[in-house]
This record gives sequence, C-alpha cells and structure tokens, in this order.
Amino acid sequence: MKDMQRTVTCGELRKEYDGKEIILNGWVHKNRNHGGVHFINLRDKYGITQVVIDEDATQDLIDIASDLKFEYCVAIRGTVRKRPESMVNPDMKTGEIEVSAKEISILNKCETLPFMIEDESKANETLRLKYRYLDLRSTGMQNRIKLRSDVAYATREFLNGQGFMEIETPTLIKATPEGARDFLVPSRVHPGKFFALPQSPQLYKQILMVSNFDKYFQVARCYRDEDARGDRQLEFTQIDIEQSFVSADDIFKMTEGLMSHIFKKTMDITLPETFQRLSYMDAMNTYGSDKPELRFDMKLQDFSQFVPGSDFGVFKSVLESDGAVRAIVVEGVAPDYSRKKITELEEIAKQYGAKGLAWMKVKTDSFDGGVSKFYNNQYKEITEGLGAKENDLILLMGADWKTSVTSLGAVRKKLGDDLNLFDPKSFHFCWIVDFPLFEKNEAGEWEACHHLFSMPQDQYLDSMEENPGEVKGDLYDLVLNGYELASGSIRVHDPEIQKRIFSIVGIKEEEAMEKFGFLLESFKFGAPPHGGIAPGLDRLVMIMAGEDSIREVIPFPKNAMAMSPMDNSPAEVEPEQIEELSLKIILPKED
Amino acid sequence: MKDMQRTVTCGELRKEYDGKEIILNGWVHKNRNHGGVHFINLRDKYGITQVVIDEDATQDLIDIASDLKFEYCVAIRGTVRKRPESMVNPDMKTGEIEVSAKEISILNKCETLPFMIEDESKANETLRLKYRYLDLRSTGMQNRIKLRSDVAYATREFLNGQGFMEIETPTLIKATPEGARDFLVPSRVHPGKFFALPQSPQLYKQILMVSNFDKYFQVARCYRDEDARGDRQLEFTQIDIEQSFVSADDIFKMTEGLMSHIFKKTMDITLPETFQRLSYMDAMNTYGSDKPELRFDMKLQDFSQFVPGSDFGVFKSVLESDGAVRAIVVEGVAPDYSRKKITELEEIAKQYGAKGLAWMKVKTDSFDGGVSKFYNNQYKEITEGLGAKENDLILLMGADWKTSVTSLGAVRKKLGDDLNLFDPKSFHFCWIVDFPLFEKNEAGEWEACHHLFSMPQDQYLDSMEENPGEVKGDLYDLVLNGYELASGSIRVHDPEIQKRIFSIVGIKEEEAMEKFGFLLESFKFGAPPHGGIAPGLDRLVMIMAGEDSIREVIPFPKNAMAMSPMDNSPAEVEPEQIEELSLKIILPKED
Repeated sequence: MKDMQRTVTCGELRKEYDGKEIILNGWVHKNRNHGGVHFINLRDKYGITQVVIDEDATQDLIDIASDLKFEYCVAIRGTVRKRPESMVNPDMKTGEIEVSAKEISILNKCETLPFMIEDESKANETLRLKYRYLDLRSTGMQNRIKLRSDVAYATREFLNGQGFMEIETPTLIKATPEGARDFLVPSRVHPGKFFALPQSPQLYKQILMVSNFDKYFQVARCYRDEDARGDRQLEFTQIDIEQSFVSADDIFKMTEGLMSHIFKKTMDITLPETFQRLSYMDAMNTYGSDKPELRFDMKLQDFSQFVPGSDFGVFKSVLESDGAVRAIVVEGVAPDYSRKKITELEEIAKQYGAKGLAWMKVKTDSFDGGVSKFYNNQYKEITEGLGAKENDLILLMGADWKTSVTSLGAVRKKLGDDLNLFDPKSFHFCWIVDFPLFEKNEAGEWEACHHLFSMPQDQYLDSMEENPGEVKGDLYDLVLNGYELASGSIRVHDPEIQKRIFSIVGIKEEEAMEKFGFLLESFKFGAPPHGGIAPGLDRLVMIMAGEDSIREVIPFPKNAMAMSPMDNSPAEVEPEQIEELSLKIILPKED
Repeated sequence: MKDMQRTVTCGELRKEYDGKEIILNGWVHKNRNHGGVHFINLRDKYGITQVVIDEDATQDLIDIASDLKFEYCVAIRGTVRKRPESMVNPDMKTGEIEVSAKEISILNKCETLPFMIEDESKANETLRLKYRYLDLRSTGMQNRIKLRSDVAYATREFLNGQGFMEIETPTLIKATPEGARDFLVPSRVHPGKFFALPQSPQLYKQILMVSNFDKYFQVARCYRDEDARGDRQLEFTQIDIEQSFVSADDIFKMTEGLMSHIFKKTMDITLPETFQRLSYMDAMNTYGSDKPELRFDMKLQDFSQFVPGSDFGVFKSVLESDGAVRAIVVEGVAPDYSRKKITELEEIAKQYGAKGLAWMKVKTDSFDGGVSKFYNNQYKEITEGLGAKENDLILLMGADWKTSVTSLGAVRKKLGDDLNLFDPKSFHFCWIVDFPLFEKNEAGEWEACHHLFSMPQDQYLDSMEENPGEVKGDLYDLVLNGYELASGSIRVHDPEIQKRIFSIVGIKEEEAMEKFGFLLESFKFGAPPHGGIAPGLDRLVMIMAGEDSIREVIPFPKNAMAMSPMDNSPAEVEPEQIEELSLKIILPKED
C-alpha cells in the first residue's frame, strides 16, 4: 500500500491543483459507464471526488474500473484537471475538477451490501445495528458522530478555560444495598464479592469537593441495568460537573456559559445570555409539565371561576374534592377538529390518569358541541376570561390537581407538534427551580423528591421538620425543548443537616452509613459547601441533531431489547468462566 | 452561606488590593497564636493567604479564631493590607499582603485528622487510600491530579487540532471465549447471559476505521481482572488512537507531535522533533531490553571473540550450544565494588534466568578477581576491544541468547540507578521497531507475539509461511525512560492475509469467527488499511510526575489487593440482588 498512499483527501482538490499528479484513497460511491467512459465517485471522510477513466486508458485500467463495485476500497493515482465550465458541479466541494486515472489499486473488495449507504439509511433498525459499521458510513451518522465529538470537545474547551479540572472517577465501585438498577461485576480475586458500575459519579464528585478540587468535571460513562423500555441505554454519558463554595446562581451562570459555547462552536447558534427561570409550580400550572416545551404559548388557564355558574356536575364535584379544573384555548382549529380528533387528544390525557377530556368550540356568540350547553350562559365571561375567540377550541380538564395539569399539559404538547406551532429547528432553554424537597409516597411516608443530598433553601432550614411538604430545595433542572437535559442541586455539606434530612425520610443513621458511609464520613473533615449539575450528553446531542432517539447519536448503541445486534452481547460464556467467578447460573423456571 | 461566599480565592490577593474588603473561603492550614495575635493560614485550591485577628478584634472574633482547628472549612470577611517590608514573604504568592479579619463563619468543622495534610502524606498507603479524600488535599496529590487533567486536555487539544474525532466505544461488550482476564457483567434482563468490560477498545476502533471515521481517538477506560500483582490496576486509561490509510511512519510522526505538545503544554519541556528508532534486535543486543533505559550508555558488548583464546570452559560450552557471551564495562567503579555488591548484581541476573554473573576488575596491566585468571593472556585485546580502562569493572554473562542479554540488561539498569548515571528528571523517548510477528510457545507451536491483527512487513508478505520466525511485523512500541509507554501496529485489513495468519498460528476459521466475528465480517465490506497506537495515560503521567507507582496519579486507585479501602469494594451484596441476576454464589472450598 505504501506507494499508493493518499497524497490528498477526496474533499480537498480545487482548480488550483490543475495538472498535478495525486493519489486518492477511498470508497467507490458511484461507478457509471457513459458511452465507454467510467465515472467513479470516490468517497472518503472528507468528501467525494469524481475520477474519470478516459477513453484512451489502457485496457487493464478499463478492466479494473469495470470491476469496481459499491464500497470497494481503492487507491487511485491520477492527474487533476479542471472541468469544462459546463460540467462544473457547484453542489460538490470538488466540483471544479475531476481526476483522470492512471492507476487503480484495489485495497479491499466489498461483498454485496445488506443495505445501500445513503445519506440516511432506510434499512430497519435491527439491520442498521447489526451492520453498524456500514450504517456509520452514511452521511447522517457521520455528521451526528462528528457533532457529538465536537460537543464533547467544546465542553472540555469551555470548562478547561473556566478552571475546571477533568478528573476520572472509578467505575468499579461499591454496590448500594438498594441499587436495584446497579450492574454488578463479580470479582474473580475475591470470591463472593462484587463491584458495581456507577449510575453516576455522584458520591465521587462530592468526595472531590471534600478533597479541595474546587471545580470538577468529567464526561462520564454511567450505567443503569434497566428493563428495556423507551429510549434508555444501559450505558450513557453525562457531563458531570461539581463546584465548591457556590450558590445555585453560580451553577446557572456556568451552565448558561457552557451551553452558549457549545451551541456557538458547533452550530454557530447564539443562545440568550441567561435562560428563563420558572418555578416548579409555575411550570406545572402554566404548561402542565416540569419539562415544559416553551417554543409555543397555549398556556393552561384556571377555569374554576366558571364552574359554580354552570350545572355541569362533574367539575363541581372535582372542585368540592379539592381538585382543579384547567383549560387551554386552541386557536382557530374548531372547524378542523372533528370528534375523532378530539378523542385522540382525550386518549393522551387518559395516559396521564385523566378520566376524560371536556371540550367546546367557540362560535360567534355561543359555544358548540361537547359541554357547550353547560356554559353558554357564561359565553361572554368565559371567552373574555380565557381570551378565546370565534373558531377556537376550548379543552377542559377537571381532576385532582396533578392529573389535571399533567394530562392537559400532555394534550398541549401533542397539539404543539400536530399544529406545527413552533420551529422544530429552534432551541429554547429554561431552568425549573423551587422544586419541593420531600414528597409523600403511597404509604404516606416522606421521601426525597430528588436525592438525599440536596440542600433545603435557606428560609426552610430552621423549620423543615414542621411541614416537610412545604420545603423547597436548592434543586434545579435544565430543560431544553421539552426534554429534561440536566438535573442538579446545592448539596448538603453539613452532617447535622444531613442527619435531619435522613430523619425526616425515616432513614436510620446505621442504614445511612451502610449506604453512603465514606461520603458521610468525609463530611466530618471540613467538607465545603458545594453543588453541581449533570447534563446528559446523549440527549443534548440528540436534541441538537434534531433526532428523536439517542440511538441516533451513539456510535454503538444497544437496541430496545438491551442487546447489541452487532456483537450479540450479552451472550452465554464458557462454564469455566462462571466457575472461576465462584458463581453458578440458576435459570428462572419457565412459567 | 450566601452572604459569606468568597469574593476572591486564597491565591490571588496582591498588594494592589490594599484596603479592599474581601471574603475568603477555605481551610485552616495553620493557626498560630503569637502573643495574643492569631495568624491563620487559609488554604484553598489556588493558594494560601495569611489572615490576622488583630489585638483590637472583638472577643467573639478572638474566641472563634481560637477554636479553629486544622482543616476547619471557614469563610472569612476582612480587609486586605500590605505587609510591612520586613514581613513580606517572597515564597508565597500572596506574601505581599495579609487580611485583617472582621468576621469568621465556620462552614464545617473537622474531626481529628488520621494524618497530617502535608505536601506529601507520610502515612502508610492503606491509611492514605482509606482517607483518600484527605490524602488528595496534599499539594503533591493536587499537583499530580492537575498534571493528569492537563495531560488529558493537551492530548485532546492536539488530536482535535489534527482532525481526530473522539468517539465513545461501548464498555458493555461481548466476552471473548478465552478472555480469562475479562470482567464479566451479568445481565439482569437476559438471565444466564453476560456482558464483558473491554480490555481495550481494539475491535471497536478497527470497526470505526471500517466505518470511514479516518482518524479516531478516545481517552478510554479499560479493564483487566488480574490477580493483584505489581503496579497494575483493575481499571486503567489509555489514549486510544487509530487512523486509516497510514503507514507506521505516519503513526510515529503523529505520536511524536502528540508527546511534544503534551510535554510543552504541561511542563514546558521541548522534546526532539523525531524520536530515536531501534530495532527489537538492536535494543535487545545493545541494552538487553525491548524497553531500554537510554538515558545512559553502558552498552552490552559481544565477548564471544575472546572466548576461544581462554581456558574458561563455561563460556566455551555456552558458545558450543549456540548461546551468547556478553559484557558490560562499568566505568571506574572497580575499587568500590566489593564481592558483596557484585553478588547483589548477580541476584538480579538470576531473576532473569542466569546461572551466575562472571566479572573481573581492570588493573593497570592485568585483570583482577573473578574470572581474571582466564583472560589475563588477552588483557590488551580485551581492554581495547571493550574500551575498558584501569579501575573499570567488567561484567560477563554467558547463557542462551535471550537469557544472556536480558539478564545483563537488568544488571545494566540496576547499575544506572545505583550509580546515578542519568538525570532522573530528564525524558528520553525511543521507538522499538521490527518486532518478530510470531514466536514459538513451549509446545513448539507458532503464536502471535503481539496480537493476531498486526500486518507482516511488506517484504515478508509473499512467503511468511516458509519461516514464520523470521517474519517482522509492522509493529512498534514507544518507550520512555525504560517503560513501555505504548504499543501499536499497522493492522491486517485484508481477509486473505488474516486467514493466512490464523492458519500459521493454528486457529480455525470457525474459531476465529466465534472470537472476532463481527470484526472479520466487517472486513468483507471494503475495510481500509489502518493502524494505530495506544499510550497508557496512567503510566505517562506517572513518568512525567517522577513517580514509581501509577497509584500516585490515579485519584481513587485500588490497592495491591485489588480492593478499595475507601468504599470497601468489592463487597458482598444482598442475596436478592444475586438472585435477580439468576446467579448463585458457590464459594470455593477452603483447603
């Protein structure tokens, strides 16, 4: 291969190279025969160059050219020449020139492809994942993996510039007793004992603050042994960040700077200097979600003031049992929304626990359809109150507060997509703040909403035991286009406050020590106040790339069955290997 | 904490701040009471600032200051003032000023420390690892972890600038059937099946070349379930690099550029533009090692020409049985090297399989001691031939070739250290090239020296089956200061050549497919020629930091027992967790 090693890439030839002899290495992207002249489009990572086998070429060269099939890997020596003006292809970076081939060497042949290498593979996902090495040759995958690499680099560039150190934390760590989603790794050297793969570097990044590293980050691999569902991966990557001596405002500012740098560097998009902030309650009440899609308005509105003036009993009893009745006004769609389409929306609401979805259409001076007869007597008040006008569709939801807002929020989101209410290529960040620190579980016991190491906000510090449900935490989420992109908090660094939190959620000290021993122990040695955040890299790149699945931005993902069709993992192993680990497989009995 | 958040760090105050009110956050590094005046050295990541509690301070403030113990985490509000000329401390970045405290707030107390936080912890390693969060506060560990972070960043900076993409490869992969050192990870979702943690991203980085990524790198976590021995870690990090359409020379140039950038950026050291190259045979014959320490000379020399002219039967029979007799001349040490010291050297040679170590001292016109009587008749020829002079010590080793050179090489290395023959703070890189591709194992069968995917050099391609032992591979090692820093090769991309290699080492095609199936399969689809290298990050940083153990440059290492004293992993887990994995522990019977 040495004498046929490329002297230029397939993306760099311009008319200035006219007359030069060059060598290209790449893949046969196209091979057309036009009246005895072969035109070969040769592709590499950097572009495509058109190679011509002229009519006066040797028969040997013509024979080789005739043999070249899709995705043969070849080396071509030839002379660059300007294309005639009429043949210049302005859509191709190298469209000013072509290469007249003098020698072609086949570096490797290619068997019949299981699917065509196109800009976006049209094959089904199983086939794409089985032949991922071919799928990754598509322009779409190449661009997305490039974007991912660029985002990771821009992340490091920004954080390094801000004085953060990237520090590697271990991935063979102690299992947590209730870590149902921990991957366990049996130790061969210590029979009967196990490491766990980390669900996040949480404990270690806090330890690093105790160790005076002040500003830490890591583009960190994390693991979760979850049942196959939705768009989860067994291993995923987060931009893990932690800082000492900071307030939530410092974390916001740093994160806003980070996102701005990433978007500017990789997509040349300028983000606002600061991101909108919404309290958890406002987000829930206004958008019916703690990860609201803010690229369109259509706010949830309170409808309860109109309930008493109507005979509609369902809403009356909802309010009597401390529930809520909320409305959204869908502008101008009344003529287009059939009963069938509304039933589709209702189905979505039901997925969130709603029993039904009430509706009425706005006519010139009356409501029509659905629950209209119950509210026509308040036509003026309602249209004015909700800001509804002719041809609008009003959707109404009465249920307990949470069901009412979340189910209507889901309907709102669906409408935003269906009605193209926003530019899908735009980006809208926001912070959700003032999350409650505790919530009651089904058994009526207090639990941590987020995790046990988040600080209550200052004003609740003295009296948090009195009404834990009221306590807001120094907790925040970063939301982008309706996705939760990051979660973070100011941590508890004071062993006394930590003890009080454990006590509220009913964790005994021994239990806590068993679970988080070395972290709690470390806090006894002058732990500084600290806090952090952890944006998900997979999800960030997915949203930036305009994709719906993180599998599109992970080079080698597992499929929805938590398996890899390419290497067939997980797989059975040799009995001796299990034995060496002092283990025995006990397969569950088939039902 | 909000009103006492730092306005400056402990490393930034200079005399220009004179008179300004500031807030510092940090740890009590020292607290001295000089005649009723408290001097507190407050430390953070950025430096140390002297805080003074003046005589006229409030009693409250004095009381708090008196209570401050080592490593209390505190916030101090105060006024900056220039120190009197006589009190300026030029050894301290902030030595021009001190801070007169107005308010001190204890952010967190610190219990009695298990060891002092000094520049280098003097505690034993077990204690250091158990309280790693305190050990990491030492200046030494802070500097080393900073160096590691800087080296990783410089790596990315250079490779990104060269058009490499960092691509994340999976860490839950298929186990290899003979992967005795694979960590296995049981799948909960697929009972009886396992993932493995990768020993390196080798297969995946080759796949990425098949996928046309052209230039790949990854600062990659790798895993090896090894018995606890030496300075190994269960998880380690390598700078994994692979390129398409390259020759070994391209990899050398890229790596030399990478190392130069790293050393310049992090230590301001200029490396030579190209690194010395030594063939494997030259390295073995001249330095007795394939990872030679080149910071001093003392070459191994051939002594065989002097064997026939002597009555020393041992060396004669060595040569008769195709062995080798080698010499090193240790300059000027003859008077200092007692028989005891020479015996110490002999012990080292014996560790490498030698039966003994012959020696003689050079006098004005004769040899003395050891085997001198056998060689005095050739005094002139030998001293001239070896370049030995009065007071030199000549060490001689006769054995089979490999034992002869490696055992004498080990003695040479020991002498280099003992005699301070080089500057321990200097760095000497070299390439070892022309490694044999195959070697015979004890059963007399051919095996791959490196791995099965390395290309034979061009000149052996046609006839490698004839004498596999003669075949040199496109294989290379990067050696730094006597350590193997990186290993790499140009890979086999041609399925035909790959089959021939498998056939030489006696691997059947089905077996190969079982082991490396998806890689071999991918080669059928136009795999490009490619090659790479993988410097070990832990070892690189260790050498740069002048340390002897990689545990000194890993934030949270396992100990020599492959355990973590900080979190006590690996550990037993709940029986339910094992059951959920469809496993049962069968502890080995005690002997």
